[in-house]
Amino acid sequence: MSQFFPAAEDFGRHVVFGHVRVTTLAGDHVQLSLAEIPADGLVDWHAHPNEQVGMMLSGVARFDIGDESKELRAGDFFRIPGGVRHRVTPIGGPVRALDVFYPIRDEYR
Amino acid sequence: MSQFFPAAEDFGRHVVFGHVRVTTLAGDHVQLSLAEIPADGLVDWHAHPNEQVGMMLSGVARFDIGDESKELRAGDFFRIPGGVRHRVTPIGGPVRALDVFYPIRDEYR
Repeated sequence: MSQFFPAAEDFGRHVVFGHVRVTTLAGDHVQLSLAEIPADGLVDWHAHPNEQVGMMLSGVARFDIGDESKELRAGDFFRIPGGVRHRVTPIGGPVRALDVFYPIRDEYR
Repeated sequence: MSQFFPAAEDFGRHVVFGHVRVTTLAGDHVQLSLAEIPADGLVDWHAHPNEQVGMMLSGVARFDIGDESKELRAGDFFRIPGGVRHRVTPIGGPVRALDVFYPIRDEYR
């Protein structure tokens, strides 16, 4: 077992917001989370004290963060400070994004 | 100007280890870094006190971390605790990986 190269059992796997799949990996201080939102899925309005930053990997989604909105696509980055409400809505197909949380979200381990 | 949706001027752009391009975005506590290693490039042995976790986006690379080595490809994750020496060598073509640093590396802003 390697601390550097995670094996299948090192990942957290959760289904959130109905049918959004997240595959997570915790480091010592930060947590990666691969989010897969189906075309008819939605990460509805929510907030958490953890900072969240990330990058769109595939698809197109409308990000509502606080009072701002923007359509993002593969390669676009976003920043969600702790405590700021946000929502992610796929547009025209499924979406994959890589999120980072700090500190680690224990419920996503 | 949005704190949530970064504009071009919000990114750091650096060339490191000869001709490896990194495009970085700092949040409040963590930093994203898109690393693009050309086929003949190399992120040579180095270490930093910052924790580094990340995911391969494209290509194939040999990761040497501490005393372990593994070939990683798109979708594979890695964890490099602070202070652990590491090296990344592309295999057969260019490589893109998304890295996360905690705390933020000021020299990469």
